[in-house]
Amino acid sequence: MSDKQDAWRRLAARERKGQPLEDLNWETLEGIKVKPLYMANDVADNPYLDDVPGLNPYLRGVRATMYTQRPWTIRQYAGFSTAEESNAFYRQALAAGQQGVSVAFDLATHRGYDSDHPRVEGDVGKAGVAIDTVEDMKILFDGIPLEKVSVSMTMNGAVLPTMANFIVAGEEQGVDTSRLSGTIQNDILKEFMVRNTYVYPPEPSMRIVADIIAFASDSMPRFNSISISGYHMQEAGANLVQELAYTLANGREYVRTAVARGLDVDAFAGRLSFFFAIGMNFFMEVAKLRAARLLWSRVMSEFNPRNPRSSMLRTHCQTSGVSLQEQDPYNNVVRTAYEAMAAVLGGTQSLHTNSLDEAIALPTEFSARIARNTQLILQEETGVTRTVDPLAGSYYVETLTRELADRAWALMQEIEDMGGMTKAVVSGLPKLKIEETAARRQAMIDRGEEVIVGVNKFRPDKQEPINYRSIKNRDVRQSQTERLCKVRQSRDQDRCTRALANLENCAAQGGNLMPAAIEAARARASVGEISMALENVFGRFQGNVQALSGVYGQAYAGDQAFENIRKNVESFARKEGRRPRMLVAKMGQDGHDRGARVIATAFADLGFDVDIGPLFQTPAEAARDAIDNDVHVVGISSQAAGHSTLAPQLIAALRNEGADDILVICGGVIPRQDYEPLFEEGVAAIFGPGTSIPDAARDVLELIEKRRLTDHG
Amino acid sequence: MSDKQDAWRRLAARERKGQPLEDLNWETLEGIKVKPLYMANDVADNPYLDDVPGLNPYLRGVRATMYTQRPWTIRQYAGFSTAEESNAFYRQALAAGQQGVSVAFDLATHRGYDSDHPRVEGDVGKAGVAIDTVEDMKILFDGIPLEKVSVSMTMNGAVLPTMANFIVAGEEQGVDTSRLSGTIQNDILKEFMVRNTYVYPPEPSMRIVADIIAFASDSMPRFNSISISGYHMQEAGANLVQELAYTLANGREYVRTAVARGLDVDAFAGRLSFFFAIGMNFFMEVAKLRAARLLWSRVMSEFNPRNPRSSMLRTHCQTSGVSLQEQDPYNNVVRTAYEAMAAVLGGTQSLHTNSLDEAIALPTEFSARIARNTQLILQEETGVTRTVDPLAGSYYVETLTRELADRAWALMQEIEDMGGMTKAVVSGLPKLKIEETAARRQAMIDRGEEVIVGVNKFRPDKQEPINYRSIKNRDVRQSQTERLCKVRQSRDQDRCTRALANLENCAAQGGNLMPAAIEAARARASVGEISMALENVFGRFQGNVQALSGVYGQAYAGDQAFENIRKNVESFARKEGRRPRMLVAKMGQDGHDRGARVIATAFADLGFDVDIGPLFQTPAEAARDAIDNDVHVVGISSQAAGHSTLAPQLIAALRNEGADDILVICGGVIPRQDYEPLFEEGVAAIFGPGTSIPDAARDVLELIEKRRLTDHG
Repeated sequence: MSDKQDAWRRLAARERKGQPLEDLNWETLEGIKVKPLYMANDVADNPYLDDVPGLNPYLRGVRATMYTQRPWTIRQYAGFSTAEESNAFYRQALAAGQQGVSVAFDLATHRGYDSDHPRVEGDVGKAGVAIDTVEDMKILFDGIPLEKVSVSMTMNGAVLPTMANFIVAGEEQGVDTSRLSGTIQNDILKEFMVRNTYVYPPEPSMRIVADIIAFASDSMPRFNSISISGYHMQEAGANLVQELAYTLANGREYVRTAVARGLDVDAFAGRLSFFFAIGMNFFMEVAKLRAARLLWSRVMSEFNPRNPRSSMLRTHCQTSGVSLQEQDPYNNVVRTAYEAMAAVLGGTQSLHTNSLDEAIALPTEFSARIARNTQLILQEETGVTRTVDPLAGSYYVETLTRELADRAWALMQEIEDMGGMTKAVVSGLPKLKIEETAARRQAMIDRGEEVIVGVNKFRPDKQEPINYRSIKNRDVRQSQTERLCKVRQSRDQDRCTRALANLENCAAQGGNLMPAAIEAARARASVGEISMALENVFGRFQGNVQALSGVYGQAYAGDQAFENIRKNVESFARKEGRRPRMLVAKMGQDGHDRGARVIATAFADLGFDVDIGPLFQTPAEAARDAIDNDVHVVGISSQAAGHSTLAPQLIAALRNEGADDILVICGGVIPRQDYEPLFEEGVAAIFGPGTSIPDAARDVLELIEKRRLTDHG
Repeated sequence: MSDKQDAWRRLAARERKGQPLEDLNWETLEGIKVKPLYMANDVADNPYLDDVPGLNPYLRGVRATMYTQRPWTIRQYAGFSTAEESNAFYRQALAAGQQGVSVAFDLATHRGYDSDHPRVEGDVGKAGVAIDTVEDMKILFDGIPLEKVSVSMTMNGAVLPTMANFIVAGEEQGVDTSRLSGTIQNDILKEFMVRNTYVYPPEPSMRIVADIIAFASDSMPRFNSISISGYHMQEAGANLVQELAYTLANGREYVRTAVARGLDVDAFAGRLSFFFAIGMNFFMEVAKLRAARLLWSRVMSEFNPRNPRSSMLRTHCQTSGVSLQEQDPYNNVVRTAYEAMAAVLGGTQSLHTNSLDEAIALPTEFSARIARNTQLILQEETGVTRTVDPLAGSYYVETLTRELADRAWALMQEIEDMGGMTKAVVSGLPKLKIEETAARRQAMIDRGEEVIVGVNKFRPDKQEPINYRSIKNRDVRQSQTERLCKVRQSRDQDRCTRALANLENCAAQGGNLMPAAIEAARARASVGEISMALENVFGRFQGNVQALSGVYGQAYAGDQAFENIRKNVESFARKEGRRPRMLVAKMGQDGHDRGARVIATAFADLGFDVDIGPLFQTPAEAARDAIDNDVHVVGISSQAAGHSTLAPQLIAALRNEGADDILVICGGVIPRQDYEPLFEEGVAAIFGPGTSIPDAARDVLELIEKRRLTDHG
């Protein structure tokens, strides 16, 4: 063996023509060193090589026969606009080969607001479907038999009213709660880390999680009571070790919480499910899913389950949204195809494949079909389902699996040392670590060290326009408000009031909140009313805003172009007596703040004074902040389609306060067709996905200088 | 180990709920049994597990560092219309990230006819670029520096004039022949087996192959003098064992021929290259490339080379054209992405990825860009280039590699037993075996046993039209004819006549034909003239037409719907006194006859009397045959875009002979936009890719019956 390796080294050295062989090693974002060659001796001491699928530690899969018996479930996450429109979309998808439904709720619903609440004006029906009461939920599942079709619901903040509405919709379809199948995300810890669609503070939020686990273990044997999600971590910029470690650490925390509540571990652990993102690092993603199963069985051994099922990590996966690009969007079909295959070679139980337009908007019928077909082709045409865990034994994949597992386990140990995930989350450390990785990666992309085809290299000269789905959210809000009105007029108001009082009482006095929420839903209490009953007791959580500095700039050490921008910023500061100052604003209920935070870090490293506004501001609040901080520019960061409503309102609010010298710019996920209307409303610049941050900073500085010349001139 | 396996079997049996575990075995088209589980003991006695890349037998790759040092070459096969248009396309592709040029010639050029020849009226500029003289070739490479950009040319029949034109184009660019780099296909054996773009009979054809090998080994050190191609075998329906075995057997035959010529094996073997198709059976394709390298090093050991390079199988790959579908064409992006990844995990040296519209037409700029981007994304974004042969060690892949190698070696032995490939080809056996596989697979698809998404399952309700490239071949022919005229008028006619006479003399008397062909090209002799000089000595080859029967029908044994059609055919025969009779016609220079032959087999199995016309007919010849055989219907099989010209001419020819009662139908690769004009010309029905043959037969029978009613009525 060693002879062969020597021979290989000599040959490789010759091919390198004097360049060091070590330069071929690839240090991944996880800090793992990938070598140019793996051989049998790399796995010689690997203890997992004779694992079989279906048996603990489940590295090779949770079932013995896996896809050879039944392929993974094609489960496309979808929802937009009204319940009627989403229902039609689901029915069409089910008819065309999709299995199961996965509901995307709008941000108003996520954050526990009714559609008529003034804080959600830009959010209703945009990034998901608006559900205000059980009447909406019934329409959503009209013609979809809930005893047969399993339903996954991405809901965390307003999880109680949503579960309650789902259960009551089932009841009124004639389906007993015990026969409902599906999954509720119900993973609040990661919301505090990355996605921010929480409602209440961590402690009562964890109580709600446990209530739902307890209720489901008692009454919903076919329902997964939690989907412990790494997806949003990777989307927020986490590397795969972070995604793996923090997700499993969250899972451990939920199990502890439920056990502390007195639940038998086997009564609920078999209904925990996981949810991972699958990005573009193909083999690393395969290894991640294998490592995840290995580590989860190790975590669960701490709780001494008797049922083997309790130790199995079953997971849903979704191809990565942030890996998709606005530029040359058909490239995204290719990206999603590779990611889907990685998920499948990793052994996922179900899969969502993103649509080619999903970097920028919600899928159209066409793009949704191609995304679904990607999975069908993988299932039907490639033969990869024909044997279980086909990469088992690969020197490379087995080594990666082990290295990922070791590193993730070490990071999980750090969380243990902090006293568990709830405490770690409160400290803010996991969030900061993820942001640091995100900023580092963004710098690599902006510097061209990481190539994205069609974005920072191989950009097409011209781009064929594609049709995006656009949501008329004013109309949706209007129709939702009308239906809410009708429900409020026709319901038994006494029963509703009693139910809400009872719920509030339960929140204050203790007891499982789920039955009380169900009764409130039966009585046609709205999502906003149920949430408010709890908010009266628990309060509403406000995240604090820590900023990161230095990480982005570090990557540019010695870069002349970067240095030039920094010098221009300095000379502006000398001339003006202060640095260019920017408020990065997140308005509406959109909690995706990776973009905002990376921008803030990078601009700060370039010499800007940067304020990050709190999440969930109204335009009036953001305008107030901008004026109070005397900024030159407000940068609106938008990931969830609220910009068309919110940016004009911000500009109007600034104008009303006589502050129309403050520039307003937009960045993030904004379809091209929205650019012109935004410019007409007075937006000074728009930076779409794939913008290099130094380029953006240079542009913003020029805009500020130009505006000051105009003002002074 | 065995304990674990037992435990797995017990568990799997439980998951099967009483169904036999053995039903999970998958018998592939190659007859390989893929098991649901592979474990370490499956590879325990595998002798290749400690192989290293770069060392004989090269199973893991021909270079030690492979893509970690330099990725595969993105080489997109392209060419259409005139030299000017193709040149513009190449220049744009090179600017957008493509490396190297790969020329597709039109069928007229392939078959050694000038554009003004009456037999090629439907072919000029259609499936490739029309090249009549060195003047065209110079335009083709205008602005493309031939000392830097490597050029691959798919040419077999008219290989001498094409090589000569290329060399002279280089000379006149100021590039010495020794500095030209690239590849000429020059693989005539597979033309006799599947693709049929031969010109001369096998024996003189093999002489030409050897002449080119000898010339290149002497004068073109950077040029691959042959590209031994399995691609067209898979496209014609071969399974992967057949593709592998017949390709390597062809290679062995070429080496033998060159060695018999007195060449030192090391003088040429390092410049042999291979060309494989990569279809949808993902892991099988990876294994195929690994097995190919293993087997080729074994073949070459028979010739005792001293240079290690002589034993290395270096290959170009192309994703599979027949795996693409007309229906829902964006699905093809997904298919091509998976095939490209298989090629790369198999360790190809260069790759062509098909465009999404290539099931039906030549790529547009848009579709060509997405196809190229597929490779760029694979290279830049997925990380699969970071380690050599990442699947090495995989129990499944290593087992497949070995099984494919063993089966292919056995099939190669059959060829040896026949006395080598030239003899086997003359016997027609490999061709028949491939056709048998093609018919068997077609039946599986028509029966839905093999699913093709969007075609025989999951068909979309509606389909968005896409823009296909359409070639105005009358205009191309016109402009080519004018340029030919000019060249003929302006050339030194004496020098040209002398050069052609000298070439003819060389063909008759012996000696390497290449220098004589080059001198003729310098003297502006055309492709047709050079070919004719050789044809005067060698003659032109006419393939014989053997038909296959029973294979397709076998697959339908016991199928009620199939039986019903057969009964209808019988009742027609009883009523009419004879069976429905069809002539399957291949007109123009399109030699792709898989479709025609599968149709003929299947219709015969359904009870039709079927005549297969000879290849390369003119419409008048096909009409004559139809009348002589008194058929009810002529089925035109078109793969290469000649139908728009040829079908109307056939209908006119039938009409002229008073035989307009004979129906004309079309099948094959026909863009939707051509349907209406063809119907207007009198075509009775068109069957696009993905048509189920029994459905087509039922329709044809109905058409015949209807026509007879009209005639009799």
